[in-house]
Amino acid sequence: MGKNLTKRSDDYSKWYNELVVKADLAENSAVRGCMVIKPYGFAIWEKMQAELDRMFKESGHQNAYFPLFVPKSLFEAEEKNAEGFAKECAVVTHYRLKNDPDNPGKLKVDPEAKLEEELVVRPTSEAVIWNTYKNWIQSYRDLPIKVNQWANVVRWEMRTRLFLRTSEFLWQEGHTAHETKEEALQETELMNDIYAEFAENFMAIPVVKGSKTENERFAGALETYCIEALMQDGKALQAGTSHFLGQNFAKAFDVKFATKDGGLEHVWATSWGVSTRLIGALIMTHSDDKGLVLPPNLAPIQVVIVPIYKGEEQLEQISEVANELVKDLRAVGISVKYDDRDTQKPGWKFAQYELQGVPVRLAIGPKDLEKGTVELARRDTLTKEFINRDKVVEKIRSLMTEIQEDLFNKAKSFRDEHITEVDSFDEFKKVLKQKGGFISAHWDGTPETENKIKELTKATIRCIPFNRKDEAGECVLTGKPSEGRVLFAKAY
Amino acid sequence: MGKNLTKRSDDYSKWYNELVVKADLAENSAVRGCMVIKPYGFAIWEKMQAELDRMFKESGHQNAYFPLFVPKSLFEAEEKNAEGFAKECAVVTHYRLKNDPDNPGKLKVDPEAKLEEELVVRPTSEAVIWNTYKNWIQSYRDLPIKVNQWANVVRWEMRTRLFLRTSEFLWQEGHTAHETKEEALQETELMNDIYAEFAENFMAIPVVKGSKTENERFAGALETYCIEALMQDGKALQAGTSHFLGQNFAKAFDVKFATKDGGLEHVWATSWGVSTRLIGALIMTHSDDKGLVLPPNLAPIQVVIVPIYKGEEQLEQISEVANELVKDLRAVGISVKYDDRDTQKPGWKFAQYELQGVPVRLAIGPKDLEKGTVELARRDTLTKEFINRDKVVEKIRSLMTEIQEDLFNKAKSFRDEHITEVDSFDEFKKVLKQKGGFISAHWDGTPETENKIKELTKATIRCIPFNRKDEAGECVLTGKPSEGRVLFAKAY
Repeated sequence: MGKNLTKRSDDYSKWYNELVVKADLAENSAVRGCMVIKPYGFAIWEKMQAELDRMFKESGHQNAYFPLFVPKSLFEAEEKNAEGFAKECAVVTHYRLKNDPDNPGKLKVDPEAKLEEELVVRPTSEAVIWNTYKNWIQSYRDLPIKVNQWANVVRWEMRTRLFLRTSEFLWQEGHTAHETKEEALQETELMNDIYAEFAENFMAIPVVKGSKTENERFAGALETYCIEALMQDGKALQAGTSHFLGQNFAKAFDVKFATKDGGLEHVWATSWGVSTRLIGALIMTHSDDKGLVLPPNLAPIQVVIVPIYKGEEQLEQISEVANELVKDLRAVGISVKYDDRDTQKPGWKFAQYELQGVPVRLAIGPKDLEKGTVELARRDTLTKEFINRDKVVEKIRSLMTEIQEDLFNKAKSFRDEHITEVDSFDEFKKVLKQKGGFISAHWDGTPETENKIKELTKATIRCIPFNRKDEAGECVLTGKPSEGRVLFAKAY
Repeated sequence: MGKNLTKRSDDYSKWYNELVVKADLAENSAVRGCMVIKPYGFAIWEKMQAELDRMFKESGHQNAYFPLFVPKSLFEAEEKNAEGFAKECAVVTHYRLKNDPDNPGKLKVDPEAKLEEELVVRPTSEAVIWNTYKNWIQSYRDLPIKVNQWANVVRWEMRTRLFLRTSEFLWQEGHTAHETKEEALQETELMNDIYAEFAENFMAIPVVKGSKTENERFAGALETYCIEALMQDGKALQAGTSHFLGQNFAKAFDVKFATKDGGLEHVWATSWGVSTRLIGALIMTHSDDKGLVLPPNLAPIQVVIVPIYKGEEQLEQISEVANELVKDLRAVGISVKYDDRDTQKPGWKFAQYELQGVPVRLAIGPKDLEKGTVELARRDTLTKEFINRDKVVEKIRSLMTEIQEDLFNKAKSFRDEHITEVDSFDEFKKVLKQKGGFISAHWDGTPETENKIKELTKATIRCIPFNRKDEAGECVLTGKPSEGRVLFAKAY
């Protein structure tokens, strides 16, 4: 229960790990680095999927499905992409097990069932998809292609953390093909904007939109746009990326199209994705020492009703009221659970739903029956009030919006207070150590300086914000000229 | 286009393969045995998923997600299950690629990145899930667990066919845990019933419910229930299965629970699944020589509107009417596409939408403008009629139900006509050869006889129907006593 949860101020990392498990979101599995997403955690992912899928379709994208495996020869075709992912690939080499003669009841890899060509378990699908697009694209009439896939991917990670970094994770990956550079750049920006809108309006997570430096770009991209969020411990988290791939994959896979005026050109590409990592961002943006805090949009259960009673007769009377409320709330589209289990005490239930972040809790006891009231508790503010029974539905409807907005505003205030402009490297180090958050500083534009700062402070450039001011300045490390500030932070 | 499609009577198998590709449902990929599900095909799968997911949740199931990989030691824990799948396993042995010094620009498996324990890419998830349930279940209070997962699985197949048999496929797999044998058996039956309801009411595919013989059972199950459908070429297709696993997995993974009366017992299990194979069943149940025929419930586009015009002015007038219809049809929940592309002729579009199985086509030409009519064509019957414009919405609403029902009834008549009772083995062979379909015959109940019949005829026992009459008889092959008829057929 919440009482046993480590305090954030004591050990933020431990708090996070405990919370994910105690709130029944996910757990480690027997497979190194792979997690089990439990029903409560998966229900949150389903809500995210439904909303993103709606946004993708409304912006003209369709879903499809491409193979899990990438033959090695395709994997290595786009050199930078291959180089970027080669070190973390799970590789299938055989297609059969057989009885192990030395160990009765055990199996071993059948050496006679070795694949002619090894198969990489997809760490991302550009290779297999562009090899497919080659056959789909002949002329400008076949363009644009705007396809998304919901899938699992595998990147072999040495140090893993539930949701934030796992060897297998779930994500969506969009892959689009365009006639012109301009159109591809527009798509890259559009999808980054959609991610930002989703993060802010649906997840109540404020984000900074910007582009990545060369160091931090996706392997094989000419440009990576991103949304960057700030966690409560002052570390940044990349919440989504959208890549302009130029003609790199079209060239690697020889994808050309007949242009309107009779020419033959390579196709322009984008790809973009968000993953179950967003659940980590959700947790670390809103939750507190008592457990999860979920924005109503993402809460699998928005309202829980707990009866407080002695004896069967009281329970029956309370249940009558509760069931009526359940019906009325469901009728207006609010998901509600009435927990009348007699195996647990009300106090236990209160702690449980606090831990699991249910936005609103209603309690109904004998006195409420007399007075025609219910006790309403908000998870985010931990405040309580009594409400007349006939006002409950109206109150909860408005609360759903109010809580959603309050969570966003609270997170935004925190984020805004943690963007600090600094103009010297001493200040940079001091702010990073004492306050954390985003550090807005001038940078000379070179990877060398970026690497040096990373080496000295562990902070990296999270993004070059799209909305930064034109402001000439001097690099915080080298003193060389800079055109504008970038955002540094330590990051997940 | 449809014109070039092989006729079913000429070569059913070729017709199927061509149709899947030409109708833009799926295609083979560069990865042996793995398919690409194209947007139009995936849209059908999404409709199936949405409906099944709704049915699962309404019957008390929740979704979760378990790892793609099964460590070899877990895979081999339940002996029969392991034996059943060992021969078709993709096995991950390494977790890194490195530059190949002998081939600049190429990669090779890094021999230093060999896994200590091989990982099997899940062919099914009982092992990894029951190893997880072990930690979730201590007492009867933790039961039942009713969890489903939507996932990809891999079974290395030597001869593959799009949708019907692919090395990777998409499916859902439910895995439940119960206190008693009775409860688990009830769940097994419930899920088989849900599959039958889905197949018949949503996909318009009539099915026979029954249980599998020992030979045809899921590896590791004590009982496999199934729904069996009949394709137009007289071959059967297993459309869904629900397994009663007894305590096999609980014993293999040591999953015990404290009972209400203080004992300690192994948990009872079920698992059940349907896959993208259902799309193959859909195609082979309803489609014809002109292409796909889709039941309205599953059609990504239910109505297409094609303008027939000369010149811009006529197009504008027609578009005004068409756009009004689009609006009105969408308002009543019908998915409609207005295809006013000027790159293709109406005849091309007609053939295209016939090929893709759009249930209703509306055409609007200059004469329709004068008369206030539209031409309505039904895909399933290939009939046409003129409808007054103000009757279109009403007509189409009722047609959606009518077509759905007609398709089911047509398939059911065909299926019923192709269940033949036979009482001698000569008749058995004759019917199988000349007519195909299900053969209802007596069988002595032994695997040996079943195998012998398979050897002689390629027909297998598809199921022991739940609704068979008690009817003593003599086995069609051996003459030994039989308690009732079973259904034989050649099968996909």
